[in-house]
Amino acid sequence: MSTITENALQSLQPPITPASFNANQSEPIRLYPLSNYTFGTKEAQPEEDPSVAARLSRLQQHYDSHGMRRTCEGILICHEHNHPHILMLQIANAFFKLPGDYLLPEDEEIDGFKKRLNERLAPVGTQFSGEGVNDEWEVADCLAQWWRPNFETFMYPFIPAHVTRPKECKKLYFIQLPRSKVLSVPKNMKLLAVPLFELYDNVQRYGPQLSAIPHLLSRYRFEFV
Amino acid sequence: MSTITENALQSLQPPITPASFNANQSEPIRLYPLSNYTFGTKEAQPEEDPSVAARLSRLQQHYDSHGMRRTCEGILICHEHNHPHILMLQIANAFFKLPGDYLLPEDEEIDGFKKRLNERLAPVGTQFSGEGVNDEWEVADCLAQWWRPNFETFMYPFIPAHVTRPKECKKLYFIQLPRSKVLSVPKNMKLLAVPLFELYDNVQRYGPQLSAIPHLLSRYRFEFV
Ligand SMILES: [Zn+2]
Ligand SMILES: [Zn+2]
Ligand SMILES: [Zn+2]
Ligand SMILES: [Zn+2]
Repeated sequence: MSTITENALQSLQPPITPASFNANQSEPIRLYPLSNYTFGTKEAQPEEDPSVAARLSRLQQHYDSHGMRRTCEGILICHEHNHPHILMLQIANAFFKLPGDYLLPEDEEIDGFKKRLNERLAPVGTQFSGEGVNDEWEVADCLAQWWRPNFETFMYPFIPAHVTRPKECKKLYFIQLPRSKVLSVPKNMKLLAVPLFELYDNVQRYGPQLSAIPHLLSRYRFEFV
Repeated sequence: MSTITENALQSLQPPITPASFNANQSEPIRLYPLSNYTFGTKEAQPEEDPSVAARLSRLQQHYDSHGMRRTCEGILICHEHNHPHILMLQIANAFFKLPGDYLLPEDEEIDGFKKRLNERLAPVGTQFSGEGVNDEWEVADCLAQWWRPNFETFMYPFIPAHVTRPKECKKLYFIQLPRSKVLSVPKNMKLLAVPLFELYDNVQRYGPQLSAIPHLLSRYRFEFV
């Protein structure tokens, strides 16, 4: 608490404003405070595969039957003290991931993605009602794509030269969060709001995909309400 | 050279095509081969400042007189063997930078940026004529923004919390290269085509800004002609 009045806190030296610097940019995107969102819990959602080998072998089966696997993940953004924060799932107090998953082979991209987001985060039953409970997900810009050239763990943000048949493509989508929303988190996971400055330059803790999110968002102008 | 005929090289097992995966994405962007571009040389353009301290002190003078410094750099893309390559300047066989520079305080953003690109790369005199010699620069999407919170060397791809007066903002623009173009490079620099896979995960050699370019471009679909 400050004893200096609001009025006296105004700087006597307002900054000099440079000429306009907003060319080729879209309108500011409104971010709401984390406290606008309500978090519930729901039944645990264990990993589909018991090991990395099992996961890659399931990918191979998928590829043999349906072609390249299509995966969509959502970048859900809110703010705390006017700094963007990303909502991420933490599993078993260890690794982080974005909400989303591979699409079922027969599903259309955006509908299939919303279905996966709902499985992960939509409230179940009648625990909640009112604004933001059953709102649709607003899937906005594609922010990044990652390709898996082989049935192996590494992915790249480009298709490596001479690779003509990537085994998986993962798209990261900007999800425009509404003013308020209820999210229910599987019991074996936590949903954390991770600030951009924590992700930045932190590939050790968050891996190449999540630590690149600050780069992907840097072109936007945000409006904090 | 292969003795197998083109026909026999066709796979007997065409890949299975998954359902469409192009939602919310813009049209493919056409990239031309590096060999479409002609490179000349012109007079050396020495660094404006003899030291980092001198550079930061000039920034401070700029800020005091004109407010936040506005800087624009261009990401010029071509391809070799169907893999995107970025045109970068290498100075004194050491560090790399993108073409572009800070804008003059009175200049409008895009015009001022084109002026800076021309200073750096436009052919001079009558050494060249014909297609691509005096074409305008096509300044496309803003791909990233970097902010300098203090009169110090580090920049971030976001405005750090509680920073209300950044000292510089640098925007990276996608420059759409035409089918062919003549570029003249100052004698003290080299213009190199650096593949995305070389930049990726290579912050040691290219620094945080250039090594992030593969992330910034991953959302695009490219068409190699
Ligand atoms: Zn704060
Ligand atoms: Zn925070
Ligand atoms: Zn190459
Ligand atoms: Zn090749």
